[in-house]
Amino acid sequence: PVGSPDSNANNHAWLGNSGNDYFMEVTTGKQIYMVSDGTGWTAEHSVNAALGQFEHCLVDRGCPVNTHLFSGIDDVERLLEIIKQAAKEGAMLVYTLADPSMAESARQACSLWGVPSTDVLGPITEAVASHLGVSPSGLPRGAPGRNFALTDEYFRRIESVEFTIKQDDGALPQNLHKADIILAGVSRTGKTPLSIYLAQKGYKVANVPIVMGVQLPKTLFQVDPEKVFGLTINPVVLQTIRRVRAKSLGFGTEARSNYSEMDYVREELEFAGKIFAQNPGWPVIEVTGKAIEETAAVVLRLYHDRKQRCSMPRISKRY
Amino acid sequence: PVGSPDSNANNHAWLGNSGNDYFMEVTTGKQIYMVSDGTGWTAEHSVNAALGQFEHCLVDRGCPVNTHLFSGIDDVERLLEIIKQAAKEGAMLVYTLADPSMAESARQACSLWGVPSTDVLGPITEAVASHLGVSPSGLPRGAPGRNFALTDEYFRRIESVEFTIKQDDGALPQNLHKADIILAGVSRTGKTPLSIYLAQKGYKVANVPIVMGVQLPKTLFQVDPEKVFGLTINPVVLQTIRRVRAKSLGFGTEARSNYSEMDYVREELEFAGKIFAQNPGWPVIEVTGKAIEETAAVVLRLYHDRKQRCSMPRISKRY
Ligand SMILES: Nc1ncnc2c1ncn2[C@@H]1O[C@H](COP(=O)(O)O)[C@@H](O)[C@H]1O
Ligand SMILES: Nc1ncnc2c1ncn2[C@@H]1O[C@H](COP(=O)(O)O)[C@@H](O)[C@H]1O
Ligand SMILES: [Mg+2]
Ligand SMILES: [Mg+2]
Repeated sequence: PVGSPDSNANNHAWLGNSGNDYFMEVTTGKQIYMVSDGTGWTAEHSVNAALGQFEHCLVDRGCPVNTHLFSGIDDVERLLEIIKQAAKEGAMLVYTLADPSMAESARQACSLWGVPSTDVLGPITEAVASHLGVSPSGLPRGAPGRNFALTDEYFRRIESVEFTIKQDDGALPQNLHKADIILAGVSRTGKTPLSIYLAQKGYKVANVPIVMGVQLPKTLFQVDPEKVFGLTINPVVLQTIRRVRAKSLGFGTEARSNYSEMDYVREELEFAGKIFAQNPGWPVIEVTGKAIEETAAVVLRLYHDRKQRCSMPRISKRY
Repeated sequence: PVGSPDSNANNHAWLGNSGNDYFMEVTTGKQIYMVSDGTGWTAEHSVNAALGQFEHCLVDRGCPVNTHLFSGIDDVERLLEIIKQAAKEGAMLVYTLADPSMAESARQACSLWGVPSTDVLGPITEAVASHLGVSPSGLPRGAPGRNFALTDEYFRRIESVEFTIKQDDGALPQNLHKADIILAGVSRTGKTPLSIYLAQKGYKVANVPIVMGVQLPKTLFQVDPEKVFGLTINPVVLQTIRRVRAKSLGFGTEARSNYSEMDYVREELEFAGKIFAQNPGWPVIEVTGKAIEETAAVVLRLYHDRKQRCSMPRISKRY
């Protein structure tokens, strides 16, 4: 249940409140305020995951929720202003503030004004501090003098994203040997968004479309089969996705009927299935009902398990 | 400080422990175990942010840390096996487990075996539950019967990623009016990774390179200037980035000297600066020392502030 960046435009009305600088929000549902001295992505990610536990009442709008992200909040005045507004709207607050005195101000103001609040990173940071025997810096990521370092890792990630874009949709098959991961599947199995998701995690990904009657590039069969992943999907779900796609591309009725017709969809999936069967070294991943990040987790689990072999399946990183 | 997916290969040795199914890890530094019944990305994201507070000792490897991600852990046997291994390695545990009985098992086993542990989402989930007056489902995201829904939002995100890939590096300028956000800047200001980052958040992004002596597409000046963002960077830092780039592309000495030579870099940035000055409606963002996600936060803050005008600067979403 991910909100559209603009969806608030539909159901919110911002009314000027001439007495002061604030504006009253007239809206339905419960408000969740998220405040960070950084980007706010950690708070947003955590709230998203937590809201997954309330899907049963979110899907039918039984318990409508609006989130409001305030990022880059590094002074106490703005912090208190936001909490005051949260109190007015009956919102709850989720925050990540590196400076202990800012975090403490948030805690106190919330308790004073009756705003339920949760410090997302405080407990982990404390646990890590005592595990490492080192005190946290207390400095927000954007603090003066704290510059993001141009590490090898940084360059590697950017290179992965650029590589992956260039290799989209079967382009440049002569480069397949340079990829860490190669995804193969019929149209609309999510190859492109999955490739990009993995690229941002630092993997060079190529994706190769399987189209009935079209020969796959030879290079696909020359690379290490351990890095090739087949994607498969339930034909009924695929048909639904293809119909949406055909509409948005404005396909003519003829082209559309071929592309999203049930018989064709089934045949093409069988065609892909045969190729997968001929290449037993490629794991085949069922993507039906999975979000992109869920399929990504499965791909990476397999990818790392195969590299480690003898250990407990895990993805390890060094800091 | 983001670890390379493969960096563990360098400093870990996995020794078979023939007496049982476990393997001992011989490694330096402190271990952080992360366990999720889902993808593990929430735990990973939170640990990453928390580790930002220890950069002062991570950069010089004064306090080396290894993280280990275990995703899709939905039965208690595997959970206990992992915690036992964590105890052996003197690791701490960070977990996200939707099923309350799994979370309770983790808590108890950790306390029994002396593994410091933190439940990342438990507190937020409880706070949201009492804010909404609704009980959490207790079902992990991958639980049988729980299928990811093909929402409009899902299709919109995929479309954004596909649009953004097609519009990379100034391609198809006739489509600029279809973009939500347009990024303009000289080579190596991070336009491509920033575009992709924003695309995954659901925005259609186009990026347009500024190259000295090359005319910008006319369409760039025909679109709403409120959606165009200029990127600028310190020339010394840009030179460093370009040198790395030139090396990795294997430029000849001549091409390289032009592209990453200080005079040229400065002149090109001035050229860009003039274009920005001629288009005062475009906000100009300084990317020096900022991670991609930090620049993304600045872009989106401005983007939403301009849309909302009269409200407190925020990014609102509806669930
Ligand atoms: N690299 C970093 N260095 C220091 N603090 C960080 C870093 N990354 C994230 N944080 C902090 O972690 C919290 C969450 O960050 P963000 O996800 O950017 O909102 C904020 O308090 C940030 O200041
Ligand atoms: N859409 C969702 N529905 C139910 N639970 C979710 C959802 N997204 C995340 N979670 C839960 O939130 C925690 C973190 O998820 P993840 O980031 O996938 O590891 C896990 O316990 C997941 O089961
Ligand atoms: Mg594609
Ligand atoms: Mg580029």
